Formats: sequence, C-alpha cells, structure tokens
Amino acid sequence: MAGEFDLIRCYFSRPTRHTALAGGDDCALVQVGAGQQLAVSTDMLVEGTHFFPDVDPYLLGWKTLAVNLSDLAAMGATPKWASLALSLPTQRAQDEAWMSALAKGFYALADQYQVDLIGGDTTRGPLNLCVTIMGELPTQTAMRRAAAQAGDEIWVSGTPGLASLGLLIAQHDARIANLALPEQLQQAALRALQQPQPRVELGLCLREWAHACIDVSDGLLADLAHIAVASQCSAVVHAAALPLQHLAEVPIALAQHCVLSGGDDYELCFTAPAQHHLHIKAAAQQLRVKVHCIGKMQRDEGLTGDAQAEQNQGSRASVIVRDAQGRDITPAQCGYDHFQNT
Amino acid sequence: MAGEFDLIRCYFSRPTRHTALAGGDDCALVQVGAGQQLAVSTDMLVEGTHFFPDVDPYLLGWKTLAVNLSDLAAMGATPKWASLALSLPTQRAQDEAWMSALAKGFYALADQYQVDLIGGDTTRGPLNLCVTIMGELPTQTAMRRAAAQAGDEIWVSGTPGLASLGLLIAQHDARIANLALPEQLQQAALRALQQPQPRVELGLCLREWAHACIDVSDGLLADLAHIAVASQCSAVVHAAALPLQHLAEVPIALAQHCVLSGGDDYELCFTAPAQHHLHIKAAAQQLRVKVHCIGKMQRDEGLTGDAQAEQNQGSRASVIVRDAQGRDITPAQCGYDHFQNT
Repeated sequence: MAGEFDLIRCYFSRPTRHTALAGGDDCALVQVGAGQQLAVSTDMLVEGTHFFPDVDPYLLGWKTLAVNLSDLAAMGATPKWASLALSLPTQRAQDEAWMSALAKGFYALADQYQVDLIGGDTTRGPLNLCVTIMGELPTQTAMRRAAAQAGDEIWVSGTPGLASLGLLIAQHDARIANLALPEQLQQAALRALQQPQPRVELGLCLREWAHACIDVSDGLLADLAHIAVASQCSAVVHAAALPLQHLAEVPIALAQHCVLSGGDDYELCFTAPAQHHLHIKAAAQQLRVKVHCIGKMQRDEGLTGDAQAEQNQGSRASVIVRDAQGRDITPAQCGYDHFQNT
Repeated sequence: MAGEFDLIRCYFSRPTRHTALAGGDDCALVQVGAGQQLAVSTDMLVEGTHFFPDVDPYLLGWKTLAVNLSDLAAMGATPKWASLALSLPTQRAQDEAWMSALAKGFYALADQYQVDLIGGDTTRGPLNLCVTIMGELPTQTAMRRAAAQAGDEIWVSGTPGLASLGLLIAQHDARIANLALPEQLQQAALRALQQPQPRVELGLCLREWAHACIDVSDGLLADLAHIAVASQCSAVVHAAALPLQHLAEVPIALAQHCVLSGGDDYELCFTAPAQHHLHIKAAAQQLRVKVHCIGKMQRDEGLTGDAQAEQNQGSRASVIVRDAQGRDITPAQCGYDHFQNT
C-alpha cells in the first residue's frame, strides 16, 4: 500500500505560487510582504462531530479549507498559505478514489483563492482533518471583534440559516419531516451545509467600511454576541429585518430559529457606521453578495460589565432580539458549543 | 461542564510576548520581522498511534510542542508562534486535572523557548493534538535537506536510539525482557521517549556551519536518506563511528538497531564541510550538546538518479552503512512509516 510519503506525493503535492519552499522539508518557508501582518487560523474537522462518516470526500476536502478561509475573510485578510494535517484510518488511506476526491475538493477551493498548500502531516488514526490557514493584510487594518462601536449598524451576508436547514434535512429531523419542502430548496440547503462559499472577497472589501466582523460558524446570535462582548456593547437585532426570503417555504418560527441560532453558515456578520450603509450595499452588489442590515449596536444595554459572565450566560444579555412591537424575543439558546451540546 | 470557550480560556490563555493579536478572534495576527522568512511546520499526535492512552498528560503536552520545535530546529529557525488544535473525548475535556497538566506541559516548553500560543481550536472527538509551529530565520539561511554536498561530513547530535530503547521498555518488548537493564538507563530511555529536548539552540548555531539538516523522527538512516535523496548524493555511515556509549549496557546488535533505525529521537542529523569539523565540535560543546561525526556524503554511489524510486526502495541505495572492514552492512528496514508499518 501507499506509504506516508507516497500519500503526500500522490495527492497533496502541487506546484505553489508564492512560497519559497513547500513540502518535503522540515518546515515550509514563506515570505510575508513588507508592511503586512500575517493572519493565522486553525480549524479541525472530526468525523462524527463535523461530518458524517459517509460524507462525499470532494465536499469534505472543500469544506475543510472553506471553514478556514472563512476565518481569514472575517478578518479581511488575503488567503495565501495553508498546511493540512490528516489523520486517516488505514482503510481510507488505501482508498485511492476517496483520497483523490478529497484532494480534488481541497484544491478546487485552494485554486479559486490562490492558496498554496505548503506542508502538513499524514498519520494513522481516526479521521481528522486539521488546517492552519495563513493570509496577509496591511498592518492595522484587520476587522477585530472588539472594534464595534455603539451606533454601528449590524449586518449579515448571504443566506444565514440555510446550512442549518440543510443539517435538519440531512438528519431527517422531525421538525421538517412533514413540510414537503421544494426539491430546489432542499438542494440549496444541503449545498450550503456541505459546500459553503467563504466570503473572502466581501471580507476584503469590508476592511474599508466595517468596524468589527466575525464569520457565522456557531450561529448568528452566538457569534454576534462575541462581537458585542468583546466591544462592550449590546447588539439589538430586529426580527423584522432578518433575511428570511430564502427560507420562505419554511414555517416562520423554524426559519427564524435557523437564521438566529443555526451554525455552519460561514456568512459574515459585521458592524459598520450608518453613514457607510449605501457604500456597503453598493460594494456587496458589485460582488453579487447580498447583505442585510439587521440591527444596531448600543451602549451596554443590560451589560453587567463582566465579559466572562456574559459569555457564560449564553450571551443573552449582550444580544437582544426585538419584535416589531419592541418586545424582547431573544431565544433561550443562541448557538452551538461542542462541549455544552453533548 | 466547561464549554469550548471556557476550555480555551481556562487552560490555554496566557499572555503573549511578540504577538499583535492572539486568541479569541477569527485569526491571530503576527508581524514577521523585516528580512526574515517564516518557517512553518505541522505535526499531529494521535492517541494509539503516537502515544499510549494512559500517557502522562504533562509529558503529552510537552511532547506535542517538542516534536514541532524540533522541525524548526532542523531548519535553523527561531521559534515564535504556535497554534494548537485539540480534539478531545468529553471525558478528557471534563477532567480538570488532566487538562491542566496537559496545558502545564505544553507551556513549560513554550516558556523555555518564548513561544506564543496564538490560537487554535477545541472540538469533541477522539484524542488528537495538532500543532502548527512558526518561527523566523533570515532569508536564505535555512538548512534545507537538498543542500548537502559530496564531501560533507555527516553528524548526529546527542543520544540517538535512546528514545527507541525507551519504546521497547514501555512496550515490554521481548528483545529486552531478559537484559536486566540498569534502572538509570531505563529511566533515561523512557525520558528520551516521553520528554524529548528539541535541539533548538544547536539548530540556530548550525546555520553558520552546516549545509543540510533534518531532525531524526523516523530513524537516523531513514531521515539521512531524505537528505541524500534530496541532495542527489550517497550517505556513507561508518558503523564504528556510531555513538553507542549511552547504550553500552545493551547488546551491540540491538544498540546499533536502535541508533540506526529507531524513531522518535528528535536529535539533529546534519552535513557540513570537513573544514568546519572543529568549529562544530566547539560550538556544540559550548551548548553542552554532544555531536558525533558518523560518515561522509559521496557522489551518488549506487544512485540511479530516480529520486522517487530511491525513496520507494526504502532508501537503501542512498544510505550505506559500512563496517570497519568496509563491508556494506546496511540494515534491511531503515525507518518508520505510518502506513507501511501497519
């Protein structure tokens, strides 16, 4: 069978574009541009936790890189380099079709964003994929979570909640069993779950207009709460402003739940001064990405000042959802936590 | 129980030394020095493959960082930043003593080398630790595997084979069952296996003298073969020059086997022009690290020119071990491969 070095050579060695030394040595070597900071993020995907054992390997390869690119997007960084560590059961490592589809999915997205795979590791063990992604951005331009200001408008991109609907479909969840959802919506929802499109271009363009930004991986409210807590503000979301058009065939309560609390979307949630509203609309339109203004950052409404306590409370105090009558309809559970939801 | 964010906050949040933004955002931000290249390496440690389920968590935390630092050492880079991705069974995540010992071991070594933990990921799943390490080195000074030249002397640092003896002891291997090894040697061997000392200072100092360098993780001959193949040379190792003093109580055949083919040592194997012999000896002595000159690089003796074919053959043609009479006594199997040795 193929050995460790053959696996890397067979499936994960392709020419690089902007790397001094990639693969096959103790380290990779890269040159970060003058005046640039390096943005670094790591995401690990585990069989049974992040994907089903029968996942399409192409989509798995894609998503492994996509969730990492999404972190760069949320910072406003240009993707450059990735390392990939793979723990593989022997059976998978021996399955040429599976391995080659995995690599194909990974490289499909890597090529789209000119990301060089510069190294990594291959080992035997339960299926686990760990990517560290690196990108560049001019020093002092990153969109940090802590940079939101009272008065900022709150925005979310694209189709939040769609991936979460996809998960309900994939799991044959009782809540959607009798809904007879249109085939087209089901396909779109599954695609959102399995092959998310990281909002890299949007993130780059938002550097000019936005204060704070985060990618929605744990759920809109949970991730928005990270911004609110870090920025010592309250986030007020208007239920009536939530984008629900893409979930029109879903009962409104479930649609709202998906949008507010569903994870795995990899849309961007960001805050920006109101005077940039039209610039943001125009810039997003040029990128053909929808953006929705869903609320406003406020001075510490309901905040106790103890950021840790807020986060421990499930972020309820720092994010408030209001209905058209101004009533607080914040849901009890806001997002996903690997060690709380067990 | 502690949630994902609490786990990170509890155990893996400490002040950083040279990082613009660490932890708690979508990406970490670092500034690479002017005229410096970034050296990047990733190593993944999996329960059952790289360590026993009952491993001491302090030693596991230490070793997880050590094996990565060793890759920087082999390149001659100064360690700077690390990201840590953890997949944890719920039971481990809940075990405060275990988690806190893991973090303690990791930080003990991180502090020794001023490495900032800048981010990572925590997820539920089979126990798996993946570190991406980053370091700096002046552009064009890295010790690449491909840089060895015919005529270079071949060196190895420290106590190669000791970790491999430690593994035999830990596994109660039949080959050592009746040897009655001294307690002190057993302890030293287990320590070499469980708490390797990456040769960071030696790597930095070798940049001045050495051509090629690699860390010995898969076995001396196997790793030396990587240098030989990449440099299109043959490596001739003289059995009589092998350091065996630290294995004096072990039968010579077994000691040679440990030194030549045992993995997990994290010593440095390097090649350097003969005129630097005394400089290297002196520099190593100043660092209190032993270094042993064990052979010489030669022009492609036995090489077919097909680097891939060489590597596939288990590197036999590119590394030759000779006894005092000049006879070829190269062992049949040279090193460890995760997917060959199953």
